[in-house]
Amino acid sequence: MVKLRMADSKIWKTCVSAMSNLIEEASFKLTPDGIKMKAMDPSHVALVDFEIPASAFAEYEVKKAAFLGIDLAEMNKIMARAKAEDEFIMELDEEKNRLALTFKGASTRRFSLPLIGTSESDLPEPKLQFTATADIVAGIVQDGLRDGEIVGDNVACELTEEEFFMLTESDTGATELKLRKGDPGLIKLNVKQSARAMFNIKYLTDMTKAASSADTITINLGTNLPIQLDFPIAEGKGRLRFLLAPRIEAE
Amino acid sequence: MVKLRMADSKIWKTCVSAMSNLIEEASFKLTPDGIKMKAMDPSHVALVDFEIPASAFAEYEVKKAAFLGIDLAEMNKIMARAKAEDEFIMELDEEKNRLALTFKGASTRRFSLPLIGTSESDLPEPKLQFTATADIVAGIVQDGLRDGEIVGDNVACELTEEEFFMLTESDTGATELKLRKGDPGLIKLNVKQSARAMFNIKYLTDMTKAASSADTITINLGTNLPIQLDFPIAEGKGRLRFLLAPRIEAE
Amino acid sequence: MVKLRMADSKIWKTCVSAMSNLIEEASFKLTPDGIKMKAMDPSHVALVDFEIPASAFAEYEVKKAAFLGIDLAEMNKIMARAKAEDEFIMELDEEKNRLALTFKGASTRRFSLPLIGTSESDLPEPKLQFTATADIVAGIVQDGLRDGEIVGDNVACELTEEEFFMLTESDTGATELKLRKGDPGLIKLNVKQSARAMFNIKYLTDMTKAASSADTITINLGTNLPIQLDFPIAEGKGRLRFLLAPRIEAE
Repeated sequence: MVKLRMADSKIWKTCVSAMSNLIEEASFKLTPDGIKMKAMDPSHVALVDFEIPASAFAEYEVKKAAFLGIDLAEMNKIMARAKAEDEFIMELDEEKNRLALTFKGASTRRFSLPLIGTSESDLPEPKLQFTATADIVAGIVQDGLRDGEIVGDNVACELTEEEFFMLTESDTGATELKLRKGDPGLIKLNVKQSARAMFNIKYLTDMTKAASSADTITINLGTNLPIQLDFPIAEGKGRLRFLLAPRIEAE
Repeated sequence: MVKLRMADSKIWKTCVSAMSNLIEEASFKLTPDGIKMKAMDPSHVALVDFEIPASAFAEYEVKKAAFLGIDLAEMNKIMARAKAEDEFIMELDEEKNRLALTFKGASTRRFSLPLIGTSESDLPEPKLQFTATADIVAGIVQDGLRDGEIVGDNVACELTEEEFFMLTESDTGATELKLRKGDPGLIKLNVKQSARAMFNIKYLTDMTKAASSADTITINLGTNLPIQLDFPIAEGKGRLRFLLAPRIEAE
Repeated sequence: MVKLRMADSKIWKTCVSAMSNLIEEASFKLTPDGIKMKAMDPSHVALVDFEIPASAFAEYEVKKAAFLGIDLAEMNKIMARAKAEDEFIMELDEEKNRLALTFKGASTRRFSLPLIGTSESDLPEPKLQFTATADIVAGIVQDGLRDGEIVGDNVACELTEEEFFMLTESDTGATELKLRKGDPGLIKLNVKQSARAMFNIKYLTDMTKAASSADTITINLGTNLPIQLDFPIAEGKGRLRFLLAPRIEAE
């Protein structure tokens, strides 16, 4: 018996939308405590790490652990049909091997999504020694990425004791974004050691779609290490985390 | 001498837009009492039945009956150029065999549309024994159709004494919409006998484009009969009616 | 040393956008007095004539005359990234042969645009004996052009002592727009002799993109002469002028 209810569908809709940009299939692990999902993208460059506790739901009934294999593109199509004010319910139909998604608003709309078989590979938790972290208004990072797209494919991200810095360069020009300590968009800055690494813009763009422009993104950096982006969800009770491998930066 | 004037172009614009999704050419019959037009779509699955009385116009001068053969796609392009506040005038230029459409607003804009020859086949009025009828908020029906598009091509529509029901099923999932007696979106429900039939979603979508989401659609159903959709126009003085043949529903 | 600063980027953004529709490369001439640019489109049908004085800038430092060769499509991409509230700065980096464009808002974003070599051909000032001129609300002209696009490629423009008139005709119909003396959209009308000429709609559409619908366009006409369109910029301190050669009108 699995029945999950949320007062609205926004959280689930946003997370599924962001995850579906990176991965095709997901195996959600449901336990009485909450839901977890971890997966790598097909090219093994990006990792999605999603967690939401039972307490983020208005109703959460999961008697014993279960895995739900989901085609994220299909689930995303369904979530896109949710209306802002709709109550949202997920129920497992074990007999038909389907997940029922119900939106209750002006009418009651029920979508039935076939479950798929997934291999549960337990992904190892990468141990990364980040040396710098910052909380940044999402819209500013999104702007820097869109700026970079004009001239190139990769963006160098840098955190120093004074600033957050994004740089894209190519033959057709260069773009840079600077956010200084004290600027309202740089909410928190904690730098043990300056860190810089270069990343693919398209991946970062897909990841930051999880956030509205006014949301906060927590960025963790280490020189030439993967970047870790954390989006707090359900008022910080859960989290959507992305890890992205760096590109080699030509000196 | 034909001269028709409306305080604004909204009614004509909406009707032409909805009709042009289904039929290419229309022969409007103008009499001193009003305008009528009936036509089948090229595949003979859908029937359009349009009526608007002289009283819906601010000025209506039609001395004797006339047929106007219209390329609806061309007329739709012109109507799309109307502005909300524009006064709208149609005049027949018999000499040039053209219809002049004038929009009077910040400037006076006049469009001239060549008339086309049409065969006036008097379509027989189908006699259908509907057993159930309902007035439903258009936006809810439109939502159910868009939901259905996610998984399939056809939607089963059902009216019972308790509810209005839409269902689409395919291998990739299922969607259903339920509207219960008493729900504000189900304005009127009158069921002599429960009725159910299946229809092509694309046709229904094109037909319901005639309505804004807050408008009311009157639905008439009979088991495995065509569906009849009525959109009141000009405060109920006229009507835009669509009939759509059912699909065979696999048991 | 070249440094130009504006309180916002709107003027530059609008002008670059309009010019980039017509010409690919521009050679901006910067002097201590201001900036000028004149160029013909690749097919030599249209001329762009742009002027903005030093006084239109919040800060204007140009010690000696300089030519900036700009790929307008690239500059347009950068200007499209400006936000409404951003302060806008252009600086010449002579060493790297680049122009730096900086937007200061929630963050500081800096774009670097390579300069290109351009041949400075001094275009002769055409001497045209216009016989009629009018100031017209831009949105009305834009509407007339979009109306015309429905039926044809060319539009005849006419100024008489009583009105401004646009006409497009083809086999598929005709559209006309009339603006009479006294209509609020016809701000000024000065006709020594009625004038009429025919122009390519696509070119005029590209030119009038320089204006918001509430702006004023000054039109100069002479029978079968080029049309001259003036858009006042920076509260009339500068101007963006377009000249477009007429088409032969079949009698």
